[in-house]
Amino acid sequence: MVYDTIRDLIAQADQAIREERFDDLMEFYTDDAVLVLRPGREAHGKEEIKRAFMAIARYFNNSLVPSQGKMMMLEAGDTVLVLSQSFVEAEKKPDSEYPSERRATYVYRKVEGKWLCAIDNSYGTTLLDSADKTE
Amino acid sequence: MVYDTIRDLIAQADQAIREERFDDLMEFYTDDAVLVLRPGREAHGKEEIKRAFMAIARYFNNSLVPSQGKMMMLEAGDTVLVLSQSFVEAEKKPDSEYPSERRATYVYRKVEGKWLCAIDNSYGTTLLDSADKTE
Repeated sequence: MVYDTIRDLIAQADQAIREERFDDLMEFYTDDAVLVLRPGREAHGKEEIKRAFMAIARYFNNSLVPSQGKMMMLEAGDTVLVLSQSFVEAEKKPDSEYPSERRATYVYRKVEGKWLCAIDNSYGTTLLDSADKTE
Repeated sequence: MVYDTIRDLIAQADQAIREERFDDLMEFYTDDAVLVLRPGREAHGKEEIKRAFMAIARYFNNSLVPSQGKMMMLEAGDTVLVLSQSFVEAEKKPDSEYPSERRATYVYRKVEGKWLCAIDNSYGTTLLDSADKTE
C-alpha cells in the first residue's frame, strides 16, 4: 500500500513538473528537503528547490517530460528509500549530453500522516563518480 | 560534521561485523530497520537483522572484512542518504561470484539525538536489475 501511495505521489509530482505548477510541486517535499541539481550542486528547502525547478524548465525550453519506469522501495517505518528508473524527455533539449535515463534514489518520510519527499537525487549512486575520497 | 559522525558510525559497525559482535552491531540500527540480504530478500527489525548477519558470517566462514571507500551524503534535517563504495573481502570466500565492490545506499535517521541506520542496502540501485516493472 505504501508502494502504491508513493508511486502515485511521484507520478503527481512529475505531472506538476510537466505542467510547470511549481507551487503545487512544493507540496510534495518536506520543509528541509534536498534536491540534487547536478553532482556537487544541491538545493535545500522549498524556496531553493522551487527556483531550481524554474531554472531547469527554462533550460529545457519548457518542454520537460519526466517519468518513472521500474521502481523498488525499501520501507523502515516512517522512512522509505525509493530506487527508480527515471526518464527525462524534452522536445527542445538544448544539450544531447544530458542523460535521459537514470537510476534515481529518493527518500520519503511520513510527516504528520503524509508521505513527503525529503531527498530527491535523480543521479543515484553515480554521484560517487565525482566524489572525492576524503570529501 | 554529520558526515564525519556517520562515516565514523559506519566504520564502527564494519568493525563490529569483522569481530562478530552482533549485539553491539544492533545498536547502530533503528528498531524498524531494513537490511537487504540479496535482491528480493530483506530482513526487518533487529532480531531478523542479527540472525541474518550471523548467517552471512557463517557463509563467509567467519572471515568477512567489510569496508567503505568513497562516500557521499545528502542531508535533509534528521534524515541522511549515504552513497558509499562498499567493499567486502573474505579470505575464505566460498563463491567467487559474490561481488566484492558495490555502490551501497544507506539511510540514516536521527532518533532521540542519535544517528541510526534505518535502511541498509549494499546493493544500491542494482536492485532495479531484478525489479519487476509492476512490482
